[in-house]
Amino acid sequence: MSTNTEQSAVTVLGLGPMGRSLAGAFLDAGMRTTVWNRTPGKDREPAARGAVSARSAEEAVSASGLIVVCVVNYDASDAILRREAVTAALKGRTVVNLTADTPERARDTSKWAAEHGIRYLDGAIMTPTTTIGTPAGVFLHSGPKDLYLEHRPVLEALGGTHTHLGEDIGRAAAYDIALLDIFWTAMAGYAHALAVARAEGISARELAPFAKGIGAILPPLFEETAEEMDQGTFSGEGNPLTSAVSSMAHIVHTSEAHGIDAGVMRAAEGQARRAIGRGHGADGFIRIAEFLGRR
Amino acid sequence: MSTNTEQSAVTVLGLGPMGRSLAGAFLDAGMRTTVWNRTPGKDREPAARGAVSARSAEEAVSASGLIVVCVVNYDASDAILRREAVTAALKGRTVVNLTADTPERARDTSKWAAEHGIRYLDGAIMTPTTTIGTPAGVFLHSGPKDLYLEHRPVLEALGGTHTHLGEDIGRAAAYDIALLDIFWTAMAGYAHALAVARAEGISARELAPFAKGIGAILPPLFEETAEEMDQGTFSGEGNPLTSAVSSMAHIVHTSEAHGIDAGVMRAAEGQARRAIGRGHGADGFIRIAEFLGRR
Ligand SMILES: NC(=O)c1ccc[n+]([C@@H]2O[C@H](COP(=O)([O-])OP(=O)(O)OC[C@H]3O[C@@H](n4cnc5c(N)ncnc54)[C@H](OP(=O)(O)O)[C@@H]3O)[C@@H](O)[C@H]2O)c1
Ligand SMILES: NC(=O)c1ccc[n+]([C@@H]2O[C@H](COP(=O)([O-])OP(=O)(O)OC[C@H]3O[C@@H](n4cnc5c(N)ncnc54)[C@H](OP(=O)(O)O)[C@@H]3O)[C@@H](O)[C@H]2O)c1
Repeated sequence: MSTNTEQSAVTVLGLGPMGRSLAGAFLDAGMRTTVWNRTPGKDREPAARGAVSARSAEEAVSASGLIVVCVVNYDASDAILRREAVTAALKGRTVVNLTADTPERARDTSKWAAEHGIRYLDGAIMTPTTTIGTPAGVFLHSGPKDLYLEHRPVLEALGGTHTHLGEDIGRAAAYDIALLDIFWTAMAGYAHALAVARAEGISARELAPFAKGIGAILPPLFEETAEEMDQGTFSGEGNPLTSAVSSMAHIVHTSEAHGIDAGVMRAAEGQARRAIGRGHGADGFIRIAEFLGRR
Repeated sequence: MSTNTEQSAVTVLGLGPMGRSLAGAFLDAGMRTTVWNRTPGKDREPAARGAVSARSAEEAVSASGLIVVCVVNYDASDAILRREAVTAALKGRTVVNLTADTPERARDTSKWAAEHGIRYLDGAIMTPTTTIGTPAGVFLHSGPKDLYLEHRPVLEALGGTHTHLGEDIGRAAAYDIALLDIFWTAMAGYAHALAVARAEGISARELAPFAKGIGAILPPLFEETAEEMDQGTFSGEGNPLTSAVSSMAHIVHTSEAHGIDAGVMRAAEGQARRAIGRGHGADGFIRIAEFLGRR
């Protein structure tokens, strides 16, 4: 791992939609890119764009000093990395695991890596495949700072912004979990809203401009209420919890009157009513965060 | 209801945070504004700004040709409007009910209004109190188009954009339900994310810039996936349902490992797994909307 060429060689393990996008960005940056995927065939596109297609994971690992892993979860990344031949080949190299999973799994993998002389960074990608190689990509990293700084130039070939969140290897995954929580919950709300709208004779296209308007309200509200969360003061002056649960009950009622599963909203309404039951009806909605942990 | 003065006189029933904001905007527009609220005292602020404070709902109704109602829900608006003295006073006047509730309740109120010679429009406010009287307000209306056009100049004193969604009196409430569904589900996701982040040692302030980034992804995604919903083609090419449920499971696991209620995400994950169970694992997430109604 001493010459310049070798330093800017990179291996991508996992060629799902995201792995292929990562490999594409490395290739676009002119890097020697080696790829491998469990199921053959997915290397066709990167190979056509100039990637070296390895016949095995261990062969792929041996080709570069930096190994980027991006598969569905850590069960999958373990299945790839924790085979004897691959683990041996990884010795002395750096693994950047951009696979999404829990902080727990990142910490466990870091321990395994240390035991095998593998240098390890954990990361998370917060934006869709289409943002890779563009300024819109958002990458989070955690683990040893010097290791991050060493590989940052290569990682930055992926475009976008890269943030090192700290030495705690689980930190990127913790941010990832919290951010995906916001994302998937919101998407579940949107899917449900589309189902209810359809039952009311409103097409998705008709609803969309207003849905976009609601979406645009969220970012500033996230910022405002973050202040409240940290300070423990939840002003419900403009919009108290009691008013929120009233709306939530209407949503559940209308949904179920159409035979549409309202399980997500029912759960959210229950959480809000629990906070009201503890005497916080006049508070702002985010107060519920304080009661999710004590049932 | 014949002179100009009377035409631009308006009554606001209900002086919660939103009712007070509406009254304030009418006053700022120089209109003769009469106000009333069930619990006394909340008229102090509008009265200090020049509103006429009525001693009863019937007195308030008698003061104007246009009556704007904004209380917590239709149980509350019924409690105000469906008393004999008030119903009698409303005869020949126009009620614009900006109270949030279900399409069903709007239709029921419209029927009641017709039976009592009351002209009726239903509406919904999609933005916070702070937007009232500013260009940022979003108002939805439904009911007789001519009645809407007659009162539009007065309603526009509230600022923002006003959209007449159609003659079906329930349409504004149906949009309202769908849009609040998106809003409150997303807020529940955010509250949960803040709780999980805190348990992982991440403050709300640290998470906020990234949360804002996630929020910013939503509006264009709402638009894109609306197309899919209407066309019935749900491309999971960039991000299949199987990948989504993997993330959802991580969120549930991490949340529950910290003793934090994951009921909302559990419900959403269940819906996604149901769609996968029907053979749609390779589809995009919004496909789940098609299965919420058929359990
Ligand atoms: N797609 C996005 O927009 C996006 C955005 C941000 C983050 N991410 C994250 O990026 C990661 C990869 O996502 P993706 O979109 O590429 O698709 P994905 O469906 O999450 O993952 C597919 C990849 O995982 C591999 N895999 C699954 N099980 C395996 C196993 N047991 N052993 C070895 N490999 C296995 C697949 O290999 P086979 O082809 O052999 O099945 C394929 O390479 C995920 O953690 C995801 O959360 C994705
Ligand atoms: N606040 C917002 O940001 C916002 C945004 C969009 C839409 N909205 C909608 O606007 C409406 C009003 O909301 P709000 O924020 O002003 O606060 P709210 O807490 O939803 O409603 C408070 C109002 O309802 C009245 N009320 C409750 N029960 C009553 C009853 N049984 N009889 C008579 N009046 C009753 C209250 O009178 P008392 O003072 O006597 O209790 C007060 O005037 C709601 O439908 C809400 O969903 C609000």
